[in-house]
Amino acid sequence: MKALVFQGVEDVKVADVPKPEIKDPGDVLLKVTLSAICGTDLHSFHGFAPPATPGTVIGHEFVGVVEGAGPDVKRFAPGDRVVSCMYAYCGHCALCRKGWFVQCVNQRFFGMSEQFEGLRGGQAEYVVVPLADQTLESVPDGVSDEQAIFVGDILATAMFGAERAEIRPGDAVAVIGAGPVGLLTTMCAQLFGPARVFVVDMVPARLEMARQFGGIPIDASQTHPVEAIQKQTGDLGVDSSIECVGLVTTLETAIRCVRGGGTVAMNGMPGVVTGEFPYLSFWLKTLTLRAGWCNVPPYMRPLLDLIAAGRLQPEKIISHRMKLADAEEAYRLFDAREATKIVLTP
Amino acid sequence: MKALVFQGVEDVKVADVPKPEIKDPGDVLLKVTLSAICGTDLHSFHGFAPPATPGTVIGHEFVGVVEGAGPDVKRFAPGDRVVSCMYAYCGHCALCRKGWFVQCVNQRFFGMSEQFEGLRGGQAEYVVVPLADQTLESVPDGVSDEQAIFVGDILATAMFGAERAEIRPGDAVAVIGAGPVGLLTTMCAQLFGPARVFVVDMVPARLEMARQFGGIPIDASQTHPVEAIQKQTGDLGVDSSIECVGLVTTLETAIRCVRGGGTVAMNGMPGVVTGEFPYLSFWLKTLTLRAGWCNVPPYMRPLLDLIAAGRLQPEKIISHRMKLADAEEAYRLFDAREATKIVLTP
Amino acid sequence: MKALVFQGVEDVKVADVPKPEIKDPGDVLLKVTLSAICGTDLHSFHGFAPPATPGTVIGHEFVGVVEGAGPDVKRFAPGDRVVSCMYAYCGHCALCRKGWFVQCVNQRFFGMSEQFEGLRGGQAEYVVVPLADQTLESVPDGVSDEQAIFVGDILATAMFGAERAEIRPGDAVAVIGAGPVGLLTTMCAQLFGPARVFVVDMVPARLEMARQFGGIPIDASQTHPVEAIQKQTGDLGVDSSIECVGLVTTLETAIRCVRGGGTVAMNGMPGVVTGEFPYLSFWLKTLTLRAGWCNVPPYMRPLLDLIAAGRLQPEKIISHRMKLADAEEAYRLFDAREATKIVLTP
Amino acid sequence: MKALVFQGVEDVKVADVPKPEIKDPGDVLLKVTLSAICGTDLHSFHGFAPPATPGTVIGHEFVGVVEGAGPDVKRFAPGDRVVSCMYAYCGHCALCRKGWFVQCVNQRFFGMSEQFEGLRGGQAEYVVVPLADQTLESVPDGVSDEQAIFVGDILATAMFGAERAEIRPGDAVAVIGAGPVGLLTTMCAQLFGPARVFVVDMVPARLEMARQFGGIPIDASQTHPVEAIQKQTGDLGVDSSIECVGLVTTLETAIRCVRGGGTVAMNGMPGVVTGEFPYLSFWLKTLTLRAGWCNVPPYMRPLLDLIAAGRLQPEKIISHRMKLADAEEAYRLFDAREATKIVLTP
Repeated sequence: MKALVFQGVEDVKVADVPKPEIKDPGDVLLKVTLSAICGTDLHSFHGFAPPATPGTVIGHEFVGVVEGAGPDVKRFAPGDRVVSCMYAYCGHCALCRKGWFVQCVNQRFFGMSEQFEGLRGGQAEYVVVPLADQTLESVPDGVSDEQAIFVGDILATAMFGAERAEIRPGDAVAVIGAGPVGLLTTMCAQLFGPARVFVVDMVPARLEMARQFGGIPIDASQTHPVEAIQKQTGDLGVDSSIECVGLVTTLETAIRCVRGGGTVAMNGMPGVVTGEFPYLSFWLKTLTLRAGWCNVPPYMRPLLDLIAAGRLQPEKIISHRMKLADAEEAYRLFDAREATKIVLTP
Repeated sequence: MKALVFQGVEDVKVADVPKPEIKDPGDVLLKVTLSAICGTDLHSFHGFAPPATPGTVIGHEFVGVVEGAGPDVKRFAPGDRVVSCMYAYCGHCALCRKGWFVQCVNQRFFGMSEQFEGLRGGQAEYVVVPLADQTLESVPDGVSDEQAIFVGDILATAMFGAERAEIRPGDAVAVIGAGPVGLLTTMCAQLFGPARVFVVDMVPARLEMARQFGGIPIDASQTHPVEAIQKQTGDLGVDSSIECVGLVTTLETAIRCVRGGGTVAMNGMPGVVTGEFPYLSFWLKTLTLRAGWCNVPPYMRPLLDLIAAGRLQPEKIISHRMKLADAEEAYRLFDAREATKIVLTP
Repeated sequence: MKALVFQGVEDVKVADVPKPEIKDPGDVLLKVTLSAICGTDLHSFHGFAPPATPGTVIGHEFVGVVEGAGPDVKRFAPGDRVVSCMYAYCGHCALCRKGWFVQCVNQRFFGMSEQFEGLRGGQAEYVVVPLADQTLESVPDGVSDEQAIFVGDILATAMFGAERAEIRPGDAVAVIGAGPVGLLTTMCAQLFGPARVFVVDMVPARLEMARQFGGIPIDASQTHPVEAIQKQTGDLGVDSSIECVGLVTTLETAIRCVRGGGTVAMNGMPGVVTGEFPYLSFWLKTLTLRAGWCNVPPYMRPLLDLIAAGRLQPEKIISHRMKLADAEEAYRLFDAREATKIVLTP
Repeated sequence: MKALVFQGVEDVKVADVPKPEIKDPGDVLLKVTLSAICGTDLHSFHGFAPPATPGTVIGHEFVGVVEGAGPDVKRFAPGDRVVSCMYAYCGHCALCRKGWFVQCVNQRFFGMSEQFEGLRGGQAEYVVVPLADQTLESVPDGVSDEQAIFVGDILATAMFGAERAEIRPGDAVAVIGAGPVGLLTTMCAQLFGPARVFVVDMVPARLEMARQFGGIPIDASQTHPVEAIQKQTGDLGVDSSIECVGLVTTLETAIRCVRGGGTVAMNGMPGVVTGEFPYLSFWLKTLTLRAGWCNVPPYMRPLLDLIAAGRLQPEKIISHRMKLADAEEAYRLFDAREATKIVLTP
């Protein structure tokens, strides 16, 4: 079958690889109908964390149709449309039993490397999903592939961060960054009833999209974002802010624009291992900081229900629909920031 | 000045009474610009709890302009537009210090009777508001009197109940009853991100209005509401239900339509002192029941912010705009259920 | 093997029955080392809910040693000491996936009847436990059988109710009833940091035991419990109360002794299907009522850790240690209220 | 009257200053019966934040007896024994109305400097307390001055941090640092029902005291604390950790010893403005970080109730009882780390 294979740093290639097969009794073999490229894929593409191993089939965002299922699979049968969580988790370790599946000590990530026990990725024609009763969620009739693909990673990340930002009805919120994560976070933040969601970015097209999702755009290339937010909140600051970029400077903005006693969620994966942190002002403002590496599984069903009800429309951020055969070009476009979100059909 | 005076059971009259005056240093004298009739007023009108005393000026929903302020008032000055909480609270008792202002042991209710220390009501040209820094909230420029009047009682009740229903994003919710409280509860429930809000009533016009507020109408005169909800939730039931009528039978519906582990909020003031309760099924379903007599003060500012942002439009349920001089007729209409919500201008 | 078999209402008998065998790949065969009689067993014994079916091996509180395990069992191996949850749950239904295992639509209870899919009970020499990776928890070395047996039902119930009572550090709490559930609830309530835990009962020996667990005894045969609590809380009432009997009158006490805005947990299984409820005062006090049918699984590990650390000593309520062969006499004693808690060795 | 006056960096002196007087209607004049020296006083003593102004009477931990009260004071009368919050707050600003009194935009701190509007401190014979109904709490009969003095700052800080650490019954917790804050945090953490509380320090006497408060001591001069904690938690780490020193290195320990999905509370005031932070590992472990600058007022009453009930004994950490006249020597001892906690009588 065709699949996108990581060759080395900044080198991916569409290649012929053997079709994967069911090995364990909880496996499902999935015929992929849509995959997507994630910002995390770019991290690996450039040789940053999480590292990819040459020869790995890439991709952790995918939907498909069940083609076969092992004897232990109870929830799914051939023909079912499903979407996958970006990782498989054991369900039995101490952390899984506390409900922290993302922190599973046996976690296996799709499409990265053998460091994560090497689950083959989904930017391919077929993929095998282990422990499918846990890893997959069924897609309702009214939800398209282009909608469902978001719930296994990026939309769950957006919702997770929005929830951890502890937004209450009537609050003012700031989303820092209007890339794919920031735009979906803007959407999800609305589900917690804020009066206002400010969205900070420097790209007019992204800010315009944020406005369509109910955000109040603040162009950081034109105005100082912290001052603009202070001004619009009567010098108080927002109740919560959600960082969606992953830089120390954008986190600093997120911390500075929040009121005393407020909460800062970090949805963006940090691009540095360590960096400077404003300890004293963080402490004097009695803030809370919540990291965003996402506990996906509990969010998949509710997100699908919200999409089915028309209350979330993540597909609006798709900018490019391409063929798997053109995935090399897709990576180039995405890396050049010419695309907001790219989906691939086999 | 003109005011509506309770004469006795089912007998109210517009009368001339002395203009009230500031007595305590924390008082504000308010020139009323709009008052409203609440379902609770009808309870008293009919001689039920909370009882009204003959001679009392009625009314606990009102907005106005500050005409005078005692020397201790710090937040307000003449000319300020304000809305009042339906009761005054001391701020110093054990329950106030826990944040349970509605349960203040020195609570004084507006416009009911001397059993509540006889605060004169607001269906009048003027009203004195004690401990004004606590009892009043300023109305932002973009919010009209017809919007602001809701935050001191009925909209806060709707929000309080919706919050206590413990709704999470993606949930299914049922609102039982689409009268004024039920319609506003339907609005407020949306702020917690549910996928679906079912609204049960038997009056087509109310159900149509519920639909406009994002509800999924269920006509209990045409279908069994519990069965209809079971059917639409895959035999599971809703995650939360909110009773907005105050009858034992509607509470039973609320309990029966909720899934195991779910929460039932009682927004409607019960019309009986005691009544039958389904102890065993409530216990076997591990349910939670939360009463709705509302802790208004913390909700006033967020609700005004939500209205200012265009995210709540409570004024849409106003069916009749009348003069204070015609208040007797207004009570007749409201009692005959010919009106959803009546507001009165002096 | 020997087992206690339900013959009919108020008729149980120790009998020889076939030793059970592993059938499903997730099963564990357990050699029972200790079982216990629960108040719920008495309900069934008398023909009340939950109903037992003649011929059923009784008992849902048991610990043992793994003798054999099906091929899918990952967490346990022969020789492991384990304690069982009182029911098995599927793990895949909509309610399990929300974490509400007690409300699993496929729940199977041990030792009751075929209405619950007839899991054979544990008052026997052997028992088969389905889906053992979920249903069982391993017992640490420092924890005895007499301690561990509590975590699969009654101690989890006590903790669940104490948690749902929403106790905060410094609170005053009332536990209504000092039977087995009430005594363990008194213990568990301490884990939430209350300043005072009042315990109401009419049996001096039970009250004395409550005192040993840190409770402040109130003898309802000598004083009016609501008045006594009001007096000792400055006429305020307690912040939370936990009903541990299951009667309408004791629930009324629980509701009356709690302050405005407080929470009432119902740990006791109601002895009636329906009964009178004080709707108006419940609403006017803005109370919360939380039913106690217990979501056991998430509590088993933390409870074992607390026992291992010496912070819970549930075994202190064991009043009788008897042989399985004498189980008929044990039921007579327990039914006559001559025993607080009886454990049985094979 | 006698008072301790800040003269300049590392220079304090007992001096005669005018007795303060009631000016505002909400003021109380307090005859101080006990004051204490806080770690924050040392920060100022050395010229760090918060800065002290020469000529200021120092001290923000004090109890006393009401000698006079302004006309607006409702809760207190001459002769009442009271303890003060370490700061006064307005009660009316946007942050006070959200319940975040520590973040009050008009906050006034006792005994620091005019940057905080210069409230004179309490290491003196008399002190005036503004807005006394809010700032003071009455001390119950069974609570001594040496117990009560803790609730206005350091014990509230300990409790606040323990609560924000999100400890659940059965959890494992680590307290980093066993100085005054760490020891009281160890005590308060127990109120949330953990199975184990590890306490890390390098001073044997402090570790021994931590053991008396129920902690499991870990001597960081003898063993690597993160490794020791990993070992004792089955390589999992603790559920929550609470940093009680204020250094970047101790915070790093707090972050490293916590399990994925856990929470780190920072009770210690940072000794640096900015410093290095482990962004990537914090994010990959999905952690929460909560700053500890304490919202004292809601904790004062519960803490006094807990002390009255014998469940907290903060006075056990008092190492030195001295006279106000000897305060200069007291500062020398405390600065030299020869004292755990020093209290002063006039």
